[in-house]
Order: sequence, then C-alpha cells, then structure tokens
Amino acid sequence: MTEFYDRLEENFRNSFEPPAPSEDTMDPWGETRIVGKGIPRVDAYERVSGKALFTYDVILPEMVYGAILRCPHAHAMVKRIDTSAAEKMPGVVAVITGSTPGADISWYGAQSKLFDPHCRHQGEEVAAVAAQTPYQAWDAAKAIKVEYEELPFVVDEDSALKPGAPEIHPGGNAAGKPRPQTRGDVEKGFVEADIVLEETFRTPVQMHTTIETHGSVVKWDGEKITVWDSSQGVYDAGLMSFARTMNMPYNNVRFLCPYVGGAFGSKLELGKYTIIAALLSRKASRPVKLMLTREETMLCVGNRPNAKMTVKAGVKKDGTLTALQLTCVFTPGAYSSMAFVGFLFQELYKCPNVMVLESGIYTNAGRSRAFRAPGFPTAAWSLEQMMDMLAEKLNMDPVEFRLKNFTEISPSRRVPYSSAGLKDCIIEGAKKFGWSEAKATKTESGHIKRGVGMAAGLWMMGSGGPPYTAEVRMFADGGVTVKTGAMDLGTGTKTTAAMVAAEELGIPVENIRMINADTAITPYASSSGGSMTLASLAPAVRRGAWLVKRQIFGWAAEILGVTADDLEIRDKSIVSRSNPSKKKTLEEIFRTKGVLDVIAIGNREANPAGKAVMPFSAQFAEVEVNTKTGEVKVVRLVGANDSGRVVNLKSYENQVYGGMTQGLGYALTEKRVMDPQTGKMCNTNLHDYKVPTALDVPVRPEVVPVDLKDNECNNVGCKGLGEPGHVPTAAAIANAIYNAIGVRPTDGPVDNRMILELLSRKRRG
Amino acid sequence: MTEFYDRLEENFRNSFEPPAPSEDTMDPWGETRIVGKGIPRVDAYERVSGKALFTYDVILPEMVYGAILRCPHAHAMVKRIDTSAAEKMPGVVAVITGSTPGADISWYGAQSKLFDPHCRHQGEEVAAVAAQTPYQAWDAAKAIKVEYEELPFVVDEDSALKPGAPEIHPGGNAAGKPRPQTRGDVEKGFVEADIVLEETFRTPVQMHTTIETHGSVVKWDGEKITVWDSSQGVYDAGLMSFARTMNMPYNNVRFLCPYVGGAFGSKLELGKYTIIAALLSRKASRPVKLMLTREETMLCVGNRPNAKMTVKAGVKKDGTLTALQLTCVFTPGAYSSMAFVGFLFQELYKCPNVMVLESGIYTNAGRSRAFRAPGFPTAAWSLEQMMDMLAEKLNMDPVEFRLKNFTEISPSRRVPYSSAGLKDCIIEGAKKFGWSEAKATKTESGHIKRGVGMAAGLWMMGSGGPPYTAEVRMFADGGVTVKTGAMDLGTGTKTTAAMVAAEELGIPVENIRMINADTAITPYASSSGGSMTLASLAPAVRRGAWLVKRQIFGWAAEILGVTADDLEIRDKSIVSRSNPSKKKTLEEIFRTKGVLDVIAIGNREANPAGKAVMPFSAQFAEVEVNTKTGEVKVVRLVGANDSGRVVNLKSYENQVYGGMTQGLGYALTEKRVMDPQTGKMCNTNLHDYKVPTALDVPVRPEVVPVDLKDNECNNVGCKGLGEPGHVPTAAAIANAIYNAIGVRPTDGPVDNRMILELLSRKRRG
Repeated sequence: MTEFYDRLEENFRNSFEPPAPSEDTMDPWGETRIVGKGIPRVDAYERVSGKALFTYDVILPEMVYGAILRCPHAHAMVKRIDTSAAEKMPGVVAVITGSTPGADISWYGAQSKLFDPHCRHQGEEVAAVAAQTPYQAWDAAKAIKVEYEELPFVVDEDSALKPGAPEIHPGGNAAGKPRPQTRGDVEKGFVEADIVLEETFRTPVQMHTTIETHGSVVKWDGEKITVWDSSQGVYDAGLMSFARTMNMPYNNVRFLCPYVGGAFGSKLELGKYTIIAALLSRKASRPVKLMLTREETMLCVGNRPNAKMTVKAGVKKDGTLTALQLTCVFTPGAYSSMAFVGFLFQELYKCPNVMVLESGIYTNAGRSRAFRAPGFPTAAWSLEQMMDMLAEKLNMDPVEFRLKNFTEISPSRRVPYSSAGLKDCIIEGAKKFGWSEAKATKTESGHIKRGVGMAAGLWMMGSGGPPYTAEVRMFADGGVTVKTGAMDLGTGTKTTAAMVAAEELGIPVENIRMINADTAITPYASSSGGSMTLASLAPAVRRGAWLVKRQIFGWAAEILGVTADDLEIRDKSIVSRSNPSKKKTLEEIFRTKGVLDVIAIGNREANPAGKAVMPFSAQFAEVEVNTKTGEVKVVRLVGANDSGRVVNLKSYENQVYGGMTQGLGYALTEKRVMDPQTGKMCNTNLHDYKVPTALDVPVRPEVVPVDLKDNECNNVGCKGLGEPGHVPTAAAIANAIYNAIGVRPTDGPVDNRMILELLSRKRRG
Repeated sequence: MTEFYDRLEENFRNSFEPPAPSEDTMDPWGETRIVGKGIPRVDAYERVSGKALFTYDVILPEMVYGAILRCPHAHAMVKRIDTSAAEKMPGVVAVITGSTPGADISWYGAQSKLFDPHCRHQGEEVAAVAAQTPYQAWDAAKAIKVEYEELPFVVDEDSALKPGAPEIHPGGNAAGKPRPQTRGDVEKGFVEADIVLEETFRTPVQMHTTIETHGSVVKWDGEKITVWDSSQGVYDAGLMSFARTMNMPYNNVRFLCPYVGGAFGSKLELGKYTIIAALLSRKASRPVKLMLTREETMLCVGNRPNAKMTVKAGVKKDGTLTALQLTCVFTPGAYSSMAFVGFLFQELYKCPNVMVLESGIYTNAGRSRAFRAPGFPTAAWSLEQMMDMLAEKLNMDPVEFRLKNFTEISPSRRVPYSSAGLKDCIIEGAKKFGWSEAKATKTESGHIKRGVGMAAGLWMMGSGGPPYTAEVRMFADGGVTVKTGAMDLGTGTKTTAAMVAAEELGIPVENIRMINADTAITPYASSSGGSMTLASLAPAVRRGAWLVKRQIFGWAAEILGVTADDLEIRDKSIVSRSNPSKKKTLEEIFRTKGVLDVIAIGNREANPAGKAVMPFSAQFAEVEVNTKTGEVKVVRLVGANDSGRVVNLKSYENQVYGGMTQGLGYALTEKRVMDPQTGKMCNTNLHDYKVPTALDVPVRPEVVPVDLKDNECNNVGCKGLGEPGHVPTAAAIANAIYNAIGVRPTDGPVDNRMILELLSRKRRG
C-alpha cells in the first residue's frame, strides 16, 4: 500500500509541474452523442451468463489446489513444524514452510516474513499444501503438526499502550512516530473564535467483504510464470510486485485479471497467497489454484482501521471557521499502515488554522489496508458531526454554515481547483432532497422518530494522472479494439472506456472490443484505486482514439481534397461535413495506404499546472428511528457529486448507490468484533459480520450529478467518483439520527443497542 | 495467392514512390556486435524439447476432430449425398455438406465452391464430419454415401488441348489469356545475333511436402472465434481472409501460429479445412481440430506447376546477348493460378530484346500455388542451360559469358539496383569452388563421370516493404519484449528479430523475449512469403528499438546533463561514452519518469525511390554420374548469395542449405506422377514421392555471403534469402551433368532412367 500511495503522492506533485508542451492539442468535447448517456455494460452478457472468467473460474489442465495452514492463536511463536504426516496424505503433491528453499521472503517491509515464526495475530501463515482437490489440501494442512509457544496478546489500543503490555514489535506498540500537520496557528484560531467545541468520536474496524475472495492461479513455464490473480492492478500490485519479490525479470512475469469480484482497496497489494501458490507450483511442477476462504479473508487481507478522534473546533458568530484540531488514534493491527484521517480536516473548508495529529498503535489483529477513500469516511464521521454541532450552537442551518466556509482555492495546495463543485453539490443536493421542507416538517409523534441530516466530503486523489496508457486499434472495416492494462473492478471501466472511444471516433459502442488487464497484451496502467481509474483511463483512451482519427483523417483529407477538420466518420465511411458527397469508405482509404489497421497508444497527459483537481460530494439522509427497538431505517439518501463530466450515467449511479450502501453499513451495522478473552475475531463470516442487503437500503437512492464543465482537469473533463460518493454517507446518517432523537451518536456503528443506550443516556440527562 | 501477389506488386510500385519525409532518420550500422554472428535459435530449447506449440499440438477441453470426405474420382459430378448413416456412427457430433446453412461459399475466386458438386480433380471436398476421435471421424466420413456421375478427364496439357477434350471449366481448358511481355524487338535481336540457338526444356510438378501438414484448430466464443492455423500469415492468410470469407468483423477473429512446421508457399492461402473446421465447430458447439493427412496435402494444397519451355536466344561473337525469347506452357491444375516463369528472362541479364509468353492449361489435377520462388527455378532450368549452350558455342567460359552480360541497372525496372551483387556472387562463388581448376581437371576415365556446372539467379521480391510493424517494449529492469505479427516458418525469424533489437539497444540477445504471430497480441505483418520477412521485419524492429532508445536517451541526457548522442546502454545502465562516470541505471531513469516501460511501434519505412532492390545468387555444383546405373551424386554445392547484410550467419547458412537441397530434389528426384488410366496421383506419400534426405546432399554444402554494404535498401541493409538460394540449384546441377556426360538433360527430374536414356540417345547420336 505504501508504494501505491507513494505513487499517488507523486501524481500530486506532478500535477504542479507544467505539462509537457504538445503541438497537437485536442479540443474539449462540446455536446456529446454517447458520453453522458446511461448504457448497459459492454460485458453484461458475459457477467450475467457466467461466461466472464473470474480468477475463481480458472481451471487449467493438471491443476492442483493450495491451502494455507494458519496460526490459530492471537500471538504465538512457532517452535517446530512436522510435515511428515501431511506429506503422506492422499493427493498431496507439495508441502512448504518457511524453511523451504526460496520461501525466506520479507513481508510488510521488513516487519515480517512470508512464513514468520512470530505469529502476531490469528490467521498468520505457517505452512502450505498443494493437493489434487481443495478438500485434500485442507485436510493435509490440518495434518501438519505445529508446536506453538503461546504469547500474551492485546486486541485494543488502550491495553496495547499500558506499561508491561506484550510487545508486538520490539520497542513498543507505537506504530511509527506521529507527525503533526499544521496550517496557521490553531491556538490563535481558538482565541479568535466566538464558540469552541470539543468532542470525541469513534469509528469501528470495517471489513472489505469482497464477493470474490482473494486468490491466484499460477502456472510456470520454465522460468516464466503466468498468474491469474484477483487483483486491483495487474501491473503495480501484480507483475511489478511479484517480479521484485521473486527477484525475476519483469519480462518473465504475466498477470491477468479480466474480471474481479470486488476489491475496495483490499486487492491493491500482492498477496502472500500468490507467492505461496507460486512456490507450491514450482515444487509440485503443476499449476496451482489457491483461493482464500471467506474466513481467511476476514483475518488476513485487511480492513479499515478503527479510530478514536478528538475534534476541537472554533467558529466566529457569523459562521466563519477559525480553527480545527484533530487528534486521532487508530490501530493498523499488527503491522504498519496508514490512516489518512487528517486530510479531510485540512482540505474541506476554508479554515485558516488546522492541526491534525494521527498516531497508530499495534494490536494483535489483522493489518489494515486501503479501504474505499481510506481515512475519509472516518474523518467525515467526526468533522461533519462537529460541523452540525457548531451550526446548532450558531443557530445556523447546516447547509448555510457549510456554504459559508466553502472555498474555490484548495486550502492545503494553495492553488485554485480546476472545478470547485462542493457549493453546487450542497445546493443541488439540498434542492433535490427538499432540505428546507424536510427540516420544517419534522414530526415527533409516536415511537418512530423521523430525522434528516446532511454531510459534505471530497476526495484527495480523484484527479487521476499519468502514467496510464491505452492502445486504440481501428481495423479497415471500422471495428475498434481498445487495450488497456486498467482494471474493471466491477465499476464498469470497460464500458466507460468503450463509450469514450466511440464518442471520439464517431462510431457505435457496439463496434468497440475491449481487452483489459493482461500484462502480456495490454499496455501499462497503474492499479485501480484512489478513484483514479476513469480520470486516468478516459483521457488516455480519448487521446489514442484521437491519434487514430487524426491519422485516418489526414489520409482521407488528401484523398478527398478537403481539410481534415471538415471530416467525420459516418457508418464506416469518412465524410466531408460541408460536402457530404465527398466520402470514401474506411476500407477504401485503408486500402490506398495498404494497411489493415491503424494503431495508436494514448498516453494520459499531465494534470494541469497550478490547479488542484478533486471531486466533491454532498449527501442528504432521512432516517426513521424506532425508539422502542433502537432500529434505524434509512428511508432516503440523496447523493450530489461533482465528479466532472458523467461518462456513463448508469455506472455513475451505480458507484454512488454502492458508496452510499457501504456508508450505510459503516454507520449502522459493520464492525469487526474481537474477543478480548481469546484475541480472536468473533465474526469472520457474512452471517455474523453484517453488511447491508437490498432490504436495508432505500428503495430508490437519488443521485444528482453536478458538472461544472471542467475543461482543465483533463481532456474528457471527468474526475474520480468511486470514493467521494462514499465519504459523507455515514456522517449524514449520524446527523439525521441526531436530528431524529436529539442525542448525538458519536461512536459508530449506531446499531440498535447503541440507539437504546443513547436514548437511555438522554433520559438520564 | 492472387491477393498476396497483388500486394507484392503494390510493394514494387511503392518502391518507386518517394518515401515519406522523416525528420528523424537513423544512421546505417557500422561495425556490429551481434548482427552477423551465427547464434543458435532463441527458441531452440522449445523446439528440441517438444514444448513448442505447433498447430498439431493444440488440444482444447471438449475438442472434437474433423475429417473431410474427398472425391475419389479424377472428374465427377456429385448427384446425391446421404449422411444419415454417418450421423449415427459412434462419436459423431456434426456432419456438414454444401447444403449446410452457411456452407455455400465461393472458392478459387468464383471458379469453385467450398463443397462444389462439380469435382474437378481427385480429392476435392465433398462433405465433412466431426467426432470424438480422429478415427471415428474418418470412419464416419467413409460412411457418407455419395452418388457420383463420373466424367471423362485429362491429366496432361497436350490431351487437354485436343478437340473434344473434356472441359474442366466452360469455354475450354485455356487458363486465362496469355499476355506476351516484351522489351525491345526480339526479331531484330535475332537478326543482329551471330549465333541463335533454340531448345525446349521441361520441368515436373513439384510438391511442397511440408513436415507439418496443413490444418486448423478452431474455437468459437459467441460471435468471436480463435483459430490456431498452420499458416504463413496470421493476418493476410488468416484473420483477413477468414473474416471476409465468413463475413465477420476483423475484430471478432483471432489467428495464432507461433510455430509452423514448414510451408514453402503452400500456407499463403486460407485453407478450405479452416472454414470447414469453423462450420463443424459452430454446428457441434465444440472446438474442432482438423489436420490434413499427408495424402490429403499431396492432392489439395498446391504444388509447383510443370512447364514446357521453348527458349530461343541470340548472341554476338563477343558474348553480348541480343535476344531472348521464351514460350512457356504450364498447367495450374484444375483452377487458375500463375507461373511467373518469364521474369527471370526479363531481369537476369542486360539483353535489350526479350519476349516471354506464358500460357496455362487446365487439367484434372490439384491446383498449383506459390512455391519457393514461384517460376524462378523453372526459368533458371531453361535459361541457365541455354546460357551454357551459348557459351559452349562461343567457346567462352560460362562464368566469363555471364559476367559479360551483367548489369547494374535493372533491365525491367530501368533504375539502378540498390546493390547489384550478381557479379560478386559469380566471382566469389567461382573462387570458393575453384572453378577454373575444377574445369581444368575434368577426368573422363571409368564409368563414374565427374562434371562441374554453375548457374545464376535472382529473385524479384526480396526487397521486403511496408506495411510491417513490430512493437518494442523495454522494461525498467532492461528486459525487452518484441511483438510482431510476423511468422517464423522455421527460418529463424524470431532469432534474427531478437538480434536486431539487441544490436540496436546494445543489450544481450538473452534479454529479449519474442512474441509473434498472434493477431490479438502482435501488430500487423504481412504473410511470410516472397523472401520478404527479414527485409520487412528487421528494419521495423530496428526502428522500434531505436524509438525506444531515443526516448530513454532523451530522458537520460536531461538527467545526466550530456547529449543523447553521447549515450549508450551498458549492463542495465545508461552511460556517457565520453565520461563513463556519468551514468544512471535504467531503473533510476524510469523511476524518475514514473514509468514501468517504454513502448514504441516500429514501422517498416518505404523502399528507396528510384532504385530496384533484389537479391542475387550464383551456385556451383560438382556431380558424379554413374554411367552404368544412371545414378547422379551431387558431391559439392557452393552457393554465393548477395542478400545484403547477414543478420544471423547460422540461419543464413540454413536457408541456403535448405534451398540447395530442395533444388537438388527438383533436379533429380521430385515429380508428381499422374496415372493417365485413372486420372489419380500415384505418389501421394513420402515413400513414393522422393524428397532428398541427408544422405542425398553433399556432406558440407558451402555458403559464400556477399555483402556490398547496401545502405539504401533499408535501415538494416538486408535483402531476402529464402528463395534466391533455391533458384539456380537445379540448373547448376543440370549443367554439371552435361559437363560430365556430354549430353544435355533438358527435361527434369534427371533420375536414373533419364540419365540412361540420355546416354543411349547420345550413343545413338
């Protein structure tokens, strides 16, 4: 993850360098023919018919199945491993441990190993087996005899910091040194304020719960390897990480992942399972499939870390923020990771004085990873509740208060936004929701309490950026293939890319064939994460399509005796706009040049110099709280997003629906439960770990796209959407709950018990 | 074939247009590090270990096997087909005939159909079957009941022209109208001559006899299809021909052929078997493998047509040719095809007056196709024997006589050759052979008669040309992948391409990974034929590598503060030549730019304007003729070739060895034998059809590369070799036989019986 975010940080920095001069610039699109419409997925048939090849679906001749033996203890030292019985089990073709040649591999930086004898949480990898069937492999893994020395453990941050607490890493349980980040002088800001409030908020550990679990299928071919991997990036997370870990040339590694069954940040890193599969395969001389079970993913492939946030805020009577201060303690689990909670405090409002301090604390639990807008929904939970608290004290409407502190200049970057849509999101969202009316018509009768709330958000990485490439190839019969290393995590990337190519070329989407996420075939794209995919890919695709068109129009202009500007593609022909009788079929033009196809590689251009590119979001929630049962029903959700130009309205809506659904889970039901008696996770399955279902979300969430016609951010004018649409949801629901019951749910998730507790606390005064 | 040669003709025409202006020109190579050496194949391990995936090796899940029912008669009309018994045979999954939907497809232009009820020769396709095993498929094909009306037939051209001969096509058996091609005035030339000779020569029908027979494996995926095809061109002969025949978008068709087991021109066309496999597969909803048997290939996939050539030539006493006249009758079999016999007469010598007239005559036999330098070994057989006859009359040495008529200006194109190596080939070849000494030491004692002979040749299409592309991709760790649609027919294309890339980039060949001949992955290259592959591909690869280098050197120059000209790649680093302390690793430079790789597509540039580009050849043979048995033993062969720069000396030698071996077969043993009683081919297998084996060729043929440092033909300086090395062999052997026994073998092949006949004719006077 560190490496991925290093890259993102670099993209940021690059965005303040002047772009490379280019004599051939593309005009922004005006009215569009295809882009902006809502169309079904280009791979809809494959997806619904079962033809789509997910990693889980890969079956190879002679393939065997891998299974991992995992430490059952919260904290233990492996003293001895005896694999002899396992090796004799039926169907077993390979058994590996940390002492297998080639298995001594560092992991999590230098904090651990592939098979580390020091197991720092339940589920750490101890040994692995390959066998003819998954059942044989699981049985054989169980037959490995391990002698553990059990160690004392901690599963919460308070215990972890107590003197004499078991040390998870030498030198104590502080995960790195906290670096305070400041702007202005918060103490001065608090002095200048008319009102200062302070409150502490808590958020839970949330699990990624991808529908397709994690895993790989590997096949060696001499010194070369092919890996089907359920991944967010066949290049960064795949080929590059694998080659470096195994000390292999990039040229000898091929990663494929044409379909992924969900990821949410948990597939941005190379998995231990991939390396284990490769080692098993090398030992067995057979292809190996190793897919994790649901339970394994709950323990070992990441989560959103919990956080305890103390927020102090100062505001003048007129509603001007003077100071914001955040002290955040989070736990990354047993290994170092980041939280990114502070950024929203630094960026969302104009406030001149901001200080944030984040510190991580190790516990004996699975390590956190990037998770949909890492840090941001967590930050919004506290910041946006605090904003409502301030508005209440000021006797201002929350909408009005937020607009008061709106800025068109990025507070942390100190340059203007290429488009600053937060204001429009708040205004348009409020309009759609009927905010004023909804607030005014609040009813209080009976045990069902209705309330409305709103929250705002943004996302720091939605600009996209280079390097990102797409190859566009037009055949003489007008068919087009677009190849890109970019992933389609289920978000509809293939469809949006096809629409962009079709738009630029003036051909139907049906004529586009998409090939993606195969390092042997498709050109480089960085991992899909940070809501960077569309804003990186779409401009690269448009560029490639434009280059192809320019080449063909150049030929046609010569042949038809017109200027290239006057030409367009119509139904497999190139036609003069001013004189439509001047036309040639593509086939005729290609034949003149003796070519079958025209290929161009579109590169994502640099981001604009002196501008900050970010997407914005505002969301509005209506809840009904049953004060007898504590049940919270979210009856309406409206999400207004400035993510620039809408490419596919359907997948735009899907992203926001999905983001709001996951935000609803974060607010109300999702939470990793650790047993303090055993140090083990209690809810490692989807029965006990509760994600929202179709019955839990509003029947028809509403999406308001805000498009300020941003012609500066990139040549398509789109910004990221996957994460911003998730950032404010939980906070908006919390504010609505407060509005309903008059007591603030500072700690999430706000499940039935929590509501009843809050109500009883309120009654007690 | 027609289409392929249209394209080649077009390349010719293009070569006289000025090349597109380019501001970025590459310097010719001076001394080379790798190019010019003889190195083993980059895929040698795959080839010798059996890992190489030939079409014959492809096995897919659920795959079934196809078999074709072929007409057993020389000439017949299908009256009725009953497939009911076949359909009930064990394992049968599909049976198709001409009345199957989608099977009504024109073939050979409009001369025939996929399943034509009018069967014009033995082996024509009547129906086809797919079944679980090849044996079941063959059995089921035999179980199809066909009612034929047998028709009278002709298998030789003389009978075919007789009045009342059976008509193979309506309107008589003349295959097209003969078009005389003339230069100057031959009648005037004969008047000016001091000596005029006339002689008639005959050559046999020669079979391609590829080691891997023809066939395809096809797999439908909805409306898309993937075809593994033993082919000379995944694009022209594959994707394009298939898509047009099946009326499918190019985008939906993928052809692969990473390995081919020989072709020699017979795999330049889409095969009926490929379409039949596709139709069977669609009907059976299963992948289908359909590989032809040896016998089927002998009947149906082409041959070199026989020819009867009457040559009349005039010469002055000083050895100056004044006139050449060729009247050639050949038979393309039952369908239209070309012979190309005349070109050598028009091009090889300076002669001012030339007339050639070729006419084809249909017979009830398999159709001819392109075969290694189509027309040229046939033409050399007559022209180069005639040259020796004239030299004898003039009392001039054959070497001296040929040099007398050498020209540096292309007689037919009327522009200079980019390099005119014929003179050097003759002189250097004669030197290597010890021509003067060998002629002088001729012994005549005993029944073993020794003789020496020589012949010259050239090939009209060795220039190569656009369009031809190669993608070169360098990774940050210095590894390079080269992708090209070009075929490796066994000629070593992958190795020469890797050498060119390694040379240009300054890296070891081992760091190059080659991927070729997959239309989904590799960029366009035209079919491998006409000795065009290397001369088309090598410049495209060099261009791609140069573009990659230029990009990286540009970055490095900026970083190191030197000029790009001063840089070179050394062991994964970029180093300043003038100050080697200035260096950065590739990884460092790529990291600065935030990229994993650099990709460039190299395009083959146009051929030089106002120049003719052709390769030349001269060969020398020594034979021992046993006058008791008629056996001819070729004891020495020396081949001198001007094919420009040698890229891989090993594959250069391989090409010439192979060409001379096939020429030896053409001279002495290879001949299709048709039974005039039945109209059927007698020798449809490799027992009865005799190709030379290792025991028939000289222990160590000798190869003399002539390199005139042609910096004009293309950026690598190489010309075609596969065909020119085959053109003069048979003629040189014929001249050596004459030298040995004093009687001229005008008709080939000169087998034992022919020698004994010639000797008896000589004795009779």
